[in-house]
Amino acid sequence: MAPLSGALRLLYEGKSKRIYAAGPGEALMVFKDEVTAFNGRYRDEAPGKGAYSAALTSRMFELLESYGIKTHYICYAGGNAVKIRLADVIPLEVIVRNYVYGSMKKRLPLLKEMDKLEPPVVELHYKDDRLGDPLLHPRDPVAAGILAEDELNAIEDLALRVNNALSSFWRDRGLTLVDFKIEVARDNSGFMVVDEITGDTMRLIDPEGRHYDKEVYRRTRSTELLLQSYVRLLEAAGNPSRRC
Amino acid sequence: MAPLSGALRLLYEGKSKRIYAAGPGEALMVFKDEVTAFNGRYRDEAPGKGAYSAALTSRMFELLESYGIKTHYICYAGGNAVKIRLADVIPLEVIVRNYVYGSMKKRLPLLKEMDKLEPPVVELHYKDDRLGDPLLHPRDPVAAGILAEDELNAIEDLALRVNNALSSFWRDRGLTLVDFKIEVARDNSGFMVVDEITGDTMRLIDPEGRHYDKEVYRRTRSTELLLQSYVRLLEAAGNPSRRC
Repeated sequence: MAPLSGALRLLYEGKSKRIYAAGPGEALMVFKDEVTAFNGRYRDEAPGKGAYSAALTSRMFELLESYGIKTHYICYAGGNAVKIRLADVIPLEVIVRNYVYGSMKKRLPLLKEMDKLEPPVVELHYKDDRLGDPLLHPRDPVAAGILAEDELNAIEDLALRVNNALSSFWRDRGLTLVDFKIEVARDNSGFMVVDEITGDTMRLIDPEGRHYDKEVYRRTRSTELLLQSYVRLLEAAGNPSRRC
Repeated sequence: MAPLSGALRLLYEGKSKRIYAAGPGEALMVFKDEVTAFNGRYRDEAPGKGAYSAALTSRMFELLESYGIKTHYICYAGGNAVKIRLADVIPLEVIVRNYVYGSMKKRLPLLKEMDKLEPPVVELHYKDDRLGDPLLHPRDPVAAGILAEDELNAIEDLALRVNNALSSFWRDRGLTLVDFKIEVARDNSGFMVVDEITGDTMRLIDPEGRHYDKEVYRRTRSTELLLQSYVRLLEAAGNPSRRC
């Protein structure tokens, strides 16, 4: 594909990526070579991270589609760019937890880190950096008109289907999916998974408890160690096949 | 009853009350003449508040028992003291919301203050001042072993029965129960409502939107205005009948 030109119109800029308009109903999701943690308090350049993230996200969306799960993914545009369908993103972060970790343990210290959660827990958070993406009561989005009554179950079902696909994929590669975050959008025919699926949004550990996710950076602040993990993730996952 | 002597053994001290041992399996819950807000950041002397709180709590527990809801209440010991049964308190705050207000609106600003919630929302929070009593995912207490699987529904049922009793009681007196907090304990036969039920734990407004609850203090920091509201609440509720 043609290199990104300054003529592309920026639609959105987040901490880890920018979205540019790219034809009717389509966009380019361009990942930054940056890592941030603790809600932007830590921030470092991480050359190469954008490309690993774009390729892994593409691979993960191809995986989900092979399970019949709709996503906003069109094709991998090479480098740090992914071509996507534009869609109405719901302002929620959907977190699925297979084991106790992170903010779950923080809000309830009686929980034991890495205790298995059966069934997995699906959390809805309000996507708002200023508020720190607060956990919601499951009924809040309905009360706020963000979700219709029947969509609440539909989102939970979707999240659990994504969990099955991702858990099994990484289990086959020797890694345990501790938890992950997705974002969801809707079009006329229902929900689709959007945003990214990378080591920034999944927590993945090997049998020795080593992390292959952003935890590496949170703990060490080393972008080098982080990138090593992300290279390994992509090697294990394989490259995306749908190029554009 | 005899005046409280220094010989009573203090079992627990919270922000608004102290619990003293008082015979086998029983205790005295003694309310302080103090008001605190914003998790203890504001604190003022409020002479008389202890007695209003003790009398109103007693009246409220008598109301709940008239609905067949078990509580830890034995009798009103006069002044600022209530005689209670000792019980294993579950470290949760159970919040029932009939309308959007307070921390619910804070975590999801898309909600409209005083929007009616149908059905009412039952929230479980972890009781921990240092953590700011964080909202839990409904399944967290089960994962942490605080509640058994079937107790989760039992607590929600209990909370909604308390809501029916309190809402209807205050509606008859021209006030709307916006939300309230209870704490719950268990004994051999099941759950009971414990702690206090006062203007500190219920949000009550009249048709003009005037508050008869701790909101008065949060907004004005006037203990005088707060006490005026609490006197009115007790006048409207009537005194407890079970004296000891």
